[in-house]
Amino acid sequence: MGTTEITDPADPRLADYVRLRDVSLRRSLEAEHGLFLAEGETTIERARTAGYRPRSFLFTSRRAAYAGHVAASTDAPVYLVPDSVAEGLTGFPVHRGALASFHRRRLPEVADVLAGRRTAGVPGRAPAGPARRVLVLEDLVDHGNVGAVFRCAAALGVDAVVLAPRCADPLYRRSVKVSMGAVFAIPYARMADWHGGLAEIRAHGFQLLALTPAPSACSFDDVALDERVALMLGSEGDGLSSHWLEEADLPVRIPMSAEAMSMGVDSLNVVAAAAIACHSLTR
Amino acid sequence: MGTTEITDPADPRLADYVRLRDVSLRRSLEAEHGLFLAEGETTIERARTAGYRPRSFLFTSRRAAYAGHVAASTDAPVYLVPDSVAEGLTGFPVHRGALASFHRRRLPEVADVLAGRRTAGVPGRAPAGPARRVLVLEDLVDHGNVGAVFRCAAALGVDAVVLAPRCADPLYRRSVKVSMGAVFAIPYARMADWHGGLAEIRAHGFQLLALTPAPSACSFDDVALDERVALMLGSEGDGLSSHWLEEADLPVRIPMSAEAMSMGVDSLNVVAAAAIACHSLTR
Repeated sequence: MGTTEITDPADPRLADYVRLRDVSLRRSLEAEHGLFLAEGETTIERARTAGYRPRSFLFTSRRAAYAGHVAASTDAPVYLVPDSVAEGLTGFPVHRGALASFHRRRLPEVADVLAGRRTAGVPGRAPAGPARRVLVLEDLVDHGNVGAVFRCAAALGVDAVVLAPRCADPLYRRSVKVSMGAVFAIPYARMADWHGGLAEIRAHGFQLLALTPAPSACSFDDVALDERVALMLGSEGDGLSSHWLEEADLPVRIPMSAEAMSMGVDSLNVVAAAAIACHSLTR
Repeated sequence: MGTTEITDPADPRLADYVRLRDVSLRRSLEAEHGLFLAEGETTIERARTAGYRPRSFLFTSRRAAYAGHVAASTDAPVYLVPDSVAEGLTGFPVHRGALASFHRRRLPEVADVLAGRRTAGVPGRAPAGPARRVLVLEDLVDHGNVGAVFRCAAALGVDAVVLAPRCADPLYRRSVKVSMGAVFAIPYARMADWHGGLAEIRAHGFQLLALTPAPSACSFDDVALDERVALMLGSEGDGLSSHWLEEADLPVRIPMSAEAMSMGVDSLNVVAAAAIACHSLTR
């Protein structure tokens, strides 16, 4: 279809790209229109490779060559705008000069993700078989942390991720960006029922491990892992809820230096903890 | 001395606290005046416990009770300002209502940090003995990443950190904040000479490991660690310089999932990689 130049930031064809730093506006806009954004050439290509259908592309003028290349390979509109228009529209400098809006697809069911079943119409890689190593994210609030945890999980070979109902959205722009597209590379589902969600995972034969800094928890190095393991991670500030801690088969911790603990450095941030836990889980 | 109320954001006594989000202004201001800032009660207390000398404290009015408590235990001035003045002065909402400015102290020499010698006048914990596990950070540019790496290193029991000349400052406000005060809990030094700095570390008997995503590198799980090990981490974008990679005794990698690599998810961010590496290094 070729590219379309637009110079008016109020042009309705650019509505998918307004005020990208306004989290509450973006949340409702993206939910209501069933879209998500990818930023930068690599991430955009990973979304396309994973099978997500583009609504449109937006490039700044200096990316005209890449825009032309994209236009030759898609039926979606490809908009070219001056840098200043892109910045006025989105509310920040679009450093890599490339954004794309994609249609969301319905998420698979938790049972399908755990069974490694490919759901018709759901993008992403075909699972290799039933999931053996799974992360369960309770109420992470920071989109960057969600993206970083997905990147760890994907890179280290975790098979799937299950989200609690209130966990931050992996397809939010910042999650996608920080994950470097890993949110497209690992199957995930969102449980509908926070209270009973863990019981469903256990019913599939998973050992439920709760990651916690509590000194009374079992050291990760000493845990005998079952054939199927689901590792639960809690929110940045408060960790796992007491209900989820009680539901777990075993609380596990990453061993800390005694000297550091005496200085008050007694925990890791959630991404560092997730990285070590995923590494321990998948070796 | 009690607390001092100030309502004029242009009051020169508040000059340490101006425009905290203006990185280039803050870099020169803090270097020229030899100061750094801590934010939030926990971090401020950790800086004091580590022996840093306060220049002044700044609290918003709703933290008046804590401000009074601090004033009773310090000779430094304690300023109380309305929320709006704090925000106008610093350029952002001071969520926890507590800031403090501290005098920097000269950093110890690399040789002293490696030997575990306490340097007179240098704050921080007394080292337990010669360092056995050390991180060497080349050119990390993101202050948050530097803080997060220090937090991992401290929590997991790394003995010391050595910085390349251009690595971002661990005492920059954001580094301090993200580290949760771990930058005060672990001895560190900055090498003066990027080109010859690694040779000095090797001369102290350290095995030099270069962390890299290169598939040809040795898996961390297969490395036989020497008595003294220095692990090198490179910058967020490009990793280690080719000079440092060549200087290393051994390139090491964290094993990645083959399936993820086929999807293009072939690396971890520097904090996740540092977390796994510190964990492997100190077990």
